[in-house]
Amino acid sequence: MTAQSKGRLIGVGTGPGDPELLTLKAVRALAEADVLAHFAKRGGNGNARAIVEGRLKPGVVELPLHYPVTTEIAKSHDDYKAHILAFYEESAAVVARHLDAGRTVAVLSEGDPLFYGSYMHLHVRLAHLYPTEVVPGVTAMSGCWSATGQPIVQGDDVLTVLPGTMSEFELARRLNDTDAAVIMKVGRNLPKIRRALETTGRLERAFYVERGTMANGATMRLADKADDAAPYFSIVLVPGWLGRPGSVTASGVVL
Amino acid sequence: MTAQSKGRLIGVGTGPGDPELLTLKAVRALAEADVLAHFAKRGGNGNARAIVEGRLKPGVVELPLHYPVTTEIAKSHDDYKAHILAFYEESAAVVARHLDAGRTVAVLSEGDPLFYGSYMHLHVRLAHLYPTEVVPGVTAMSGCWSATGQPIVQGDDVLTVLPGTMSEFELARRLNDTDAAVIMKVGRNLPKIRRALETTGRLERAFYVERGTMANGATMRLADKADDAAPYFSIVLVPGWLGRPGSVTASGVVL
Repeated sequence: MTAQSKGRLIGVGTGPGDPELLTLKAVRALAEADVLAHFAKRGGNGNARAIVEGRLKPGVVELPLHYPVTTEIAKSHDDYKAHILAFYEESAAVVARHLDAGRTVAVLSEGDPLFYGSYMHLHVRLAHLYPTEVVPGVTAMSGCWSATGQPIVQGDDVLTVLPGTMSEFELARRLNDTDAAVIMKVGRNLPKIRRALETTGRLERAFYVERGTMANGATMRLADKADDAAPYFSIVLVPGWLGRPGSVTASGVVL
Repeated sequence: MTAQSKGRLIGVGTGPGDPELLTLKAVRALAEADVLAHFAKRGGNGNARAIVEGRLKPGVVELPLHYPVTTEIAKSHDDYKAHILAFYEESAAVVARHLDAGRTVAVLSEGDPLFYGSYMHLHVRLAHLYPTEVVPGVTAMSGCWSATGQPIVQGDDVLTVLPGTMSEFELARRLNDTDAAVIMKVGRNLPKIRRALETTGRLERAFYVERGTMANGATMRLADKADDAAPYFSIVLVPGWLGRPGSVTASGVVL
């Protein structure tokens, strides 16, 4: 390799939490990478880094990218936007210097790299400038519905993925217009989400999943979950395929 | 193991096509399974079986489950429904006999086992009767958007997964009401899907992906794809995250 040849950028999906849900391709990419980058809160290493423990190349250069804002402030605030944009620009510049030096840089991404998540902020700034590969991963939502054992969609079902940050009206409107739903970013939005599910007659078939495929994960019917505390990354599932054998209708009839 | 102890049912997601996109957990489940079941058209073994080639336990019992109907007839027809239901009942009974004999049965599922696909027909009939585990997989849609390198959703984007079998009006209505979309079951629905995208001003940012992560896969802007021929399992992607750096608006402006 000459000094001029550029390195490769690889967005690596680590899957939802269980280290066994890494793909063979992710394992190979991690073993080959010269530099390992990952986004994390200041003072912590994040879940993605924990998932890949023990799979890195000896002597790998670790490049943690620490978010400048750790407490939750309004994302619509101009200060927040300016800070976070500068942070992404700076992170891309640091990664670019390694790529310019001919190093392969793997960037970790919990779940799948192009399905929500921070890797994309590097991708849109670098993928048109350097050889880039994206290794897809098992999404958090797949991990969650597998943990519940509930088929999520079948046949011609429509699936809608919604952020729990939406207004109650908007959540209810969209729940009424879909066969199945995944609601992300639950956290303190849980009471609102519960009301939207109740209004639309979907509470009885909704599931609540906390830390999907982690060792300390929990899954239960949402109707059995208290509104007291839910982590930001918990998920609510509303399974579709209502005509399936053994499914329970709103009136409690087993088909 | 006594004659009475029941075997384990495992739904194994094989990922979208590239054998390297198997998870470590899927590889272990395949190496341990006494019986390998998979759904396939008569006369063929299907993609899922090809993906796991070389990863099976020596002496594994192969259990191909052949669909009774190979030509496309109206799914609403009573004969079709009766045939296919009888086939699922029969398939579940055959798998149950292996489980009763204490054998671990792995059932292959392309992509993710509980996200569309046939494994679910066994799952709903057997999971409440036998120890059952679902190994989630990388979905076809993740494989497809990774192949295009297009971020699909970010932040508070809404994602809608739609079957291409819907009416043009219904497709257009739902495309108008979402940030990002994945349209499955494209095939001969392509001209209709194109019209719905055109009506809603989304054709320019839509991608067409054929055989996602396969060696013979293809990905292109939908605007560059002829309407002539598309396989049933091709996918159309409409990426969200419209405010991203470098994104192109409908009027051709680069942000």
